[in-house]
Amino acid sequence: MKTLHIDLGSRSYDIHIAPGLLDQVGVEIRKVCPKAKRIAIVTDTNVEPLYGTRVENSLEHAGFDTGLFAGPAGEGAKCATHLAALWEAMMHFGLTRTDAVVALGGGVVGDLAGFAAATILRGVDFIQIPTTLLAQVDSSVGGKVAIDLAHGKNLAGAFWQPRLVLMDPETLNTLDDKTFSDGMAEVIKYGCIADRDFFDFLSAHPSRAEIMANIEHILYTCCDIKRSVVEEDEHDTGRRMLLNFGHTIGHAYELAGNYETWTHGQAVSAGMCAALQLGAGLGIMESHEETQALTDLLKAFNLPTHIDCDRETLVRAVGLDKKSEGTDITVILLQKMGKALPVKMSKESLLQSLEDLCGR
Amino acid sequence: MKTLHIDLGSRSYDIHIAPGLLDQVGVEIRKVCPKAKRIAIVTDTNVEPLYGTRVENSLEHAGFDTGLFAGPAGEGAKCATHLAALWEAMMHFGLTRTDAVVALGGGVVGDLAGFAAATILRGVDFIQIPTTLLAQVDSSVGGKVAIDLAHGKNLAGAFWQPRLVLMDPETLNTLDDKTFSDGMAEVIKYGCIADRDFFDFLSAHPSRAEIMANIEHILYTCCDIKRSVVEEDEHDTGRRMLLNFGHTIGHAYELAGNYETWTHGQAVSAGMCAALQLGAGLGIMESHEETQALTDLLKAFNLPTHIDCDRETLVRAVGLDKKSEGTDITVILLQKMGKALPVKMSKESLLQSLEDLCGR
Repeated sequence: MKTLHIDLGSRSYDIHIAPGLLDQVGVEIRKVCPKAKRIAIVTDTNVEPLYGTRVENSLEHAGFDTGLFAGPAGEGAKCATHLAALWEAMMHFGLTRTDAVVALGGGVVGDLAGFAAATILRGVDFIQIPTTLLAQVDSSVGGKVAIDLAHGKNLAGAFWQPRLVLMDPETLNTLDDKTFSDGMAEVIKYGCIADRDFFDFLSAHPSRAEIMANIEHILYTCCDIKRSVVEEDEHDTGRRMLLNFGHTIGHAYELAGNYETWTHGQAVSAGMCAALQLGAGLGIMESHEETQALTDLLKAFNLPTHIDCDRETLVRAVGLDKKSEGTDITVILLQKMGKALPVKMSKESLLQSLEDLCGR
Repeated sequence: MKTLHIDLGSRSYDIHIAPGLLDQVGVEIRKVCPKAKRIAIVTDTNVEPLYGTRVENSLEHAGFDTGLFAGPAGEGAKCATHLAALWEAMMHFGLTRTDAVVALGGGVVGDLAGFAAATILRGVDFIQIPTTLLAQVDSSVGGKVAIDLAHGKNLAGAFWQPRLVLMDPETLNTLDDKTFSDGMAEVIKYGCIADRDFFDFLSAHPSRAEIMANIEHILYTCCDIKRSVVEEDEHDTGRRMLLNFGHTIGHAYELAGNYETWTHGQAVSAGMCAALQLGAGLGIMESHEETQALTDLLKAFNLPTHIDCDRETLVRAVGLDKKSEGTDITVILLQKMGKALPVKMSKESLLQSLEDLCGR
């Protein structure tokens, strides 16, 4: 078992990574929640039939009473209506302030369960058991939890650190290729922004089988990079913005496809490529070879390296629509592979560059 | 102007108390929110016609854009439906992470606005302008914000400290006598649990007019007592329970009247009297004169000193119903006037004592 310690003072916690860990969650959670009697397991209708019973059994074996709350699969579950229903269900279950909430699933489940944990009875212990690659490397580290509003994604939420994160890489075997690749976009992002050697390691293992043969090392490295950023900037006011590499432009692609055509990982993939080209055009990036290396790696996982985007969508994404303020925007570019830096530029010039890169 | 500083590290803030302060809120908020452009004012339909325009004008004069969100008056506004509507309204208004939310009203408005501020965009600055005596001495200090669920009161919420609390005692002039007395129950509670001299001061000023003639001193003293308790125990795991003096038994009275027959202050008033009798019966309280002094003071404000309660309600309030766990309960009793202490006793014996005191 690999263990990574996230040091956030009184909110510090461990991430454990081990194949088969799903059968040990009861024992591990008992160590951090010695007083808890009840555990509310929040999951979705996709994950429940796969892993619900194993997690319940492990928890009950460790002496917990369990309640299983499976919402619909998909982003739609992250809404105020489901949150309110979850609050009521947790109280009906008899949850108390010394009990805990477990998120079993992908990023949507983690966000919804985490926000419910942050707020039920003004906050109870929260344990993440992420079952997708994207959730394992991204949403289970950092403490950001939220629901979507009609006005946009993740607009109501909290910073609520888990007490423990348990990753069983074997859960990745049940993901389809598209969902696996979705997570790979974020994995590759960590190499780009902070670790040249890791990027090269990924480039030398450009298939799902090779990634899975090294998955513990890969999960550990991604979480370790995010750890170093989050520890410095828990509440997302500074350095944490480096994690947004590929995301500002990716957001335009998600908007262009109305969050349906492109997954988050696909949009980030093409967004990273656009950011590299942008950096090259501005003379910030030292070598054009980097762009080719990134493109090759993304293509190996069937991730898009270019997405068309109309001007109107780019205007919204860049923040030049009526609702936005300010004339400047900070984008994350690469100085070289493994080193990201924030670059402040005018929204107008960003828009011009993006129109050249991906306008149609 | 009297100012009390609440020391909670990075979440420290000031409470300002001054007649006429309502016209200075813009200037004061500008000092603590130098970057904010927009202020969302959350209030209710009772308070808006009284003070809405004055607060808006003061804020706009200080350069803020204001949005006014008036919900229905009364506890019913503290629900998940209103919270979700408030979230959407704040986003429609264009609130950003550097903007702020103002609560203008009583405890219900403060709880709802505070929880919305704690969660919109994962938390924005929050300023309390409490306009009732109860809110000024109780709910505006401590950082507890929440909404009610179908399962009970204040079940979903957060700890979210305000950036500033602004109290204008002149707002108390528009309260009816019953609402004023409701707050007096909590005022008197502070004397009971922590300050004999303050209790004697109140006893020497047993009318609304005399209280209002000394209101700045009284508000300051109550908040200072709550400050000393909250600074030691921000997240309510220990000493903060002393603030519950009169509340465990008061809760039974509120339940007995289905939260309609008795106001919170009335229930706490009779609850404090019952707690004194309980302490006297257990030999914890040194003198029976204290009971008479408390009874006299409460009666001067038309607060009840005895409420009948049936056995079934007492069973629920004490936690001897099926849903509750544990056989013991901690009640707050007085050792003498000005000194409260937590006393752990069996639920059975507490129930027996309460049946003797207020059973019917």
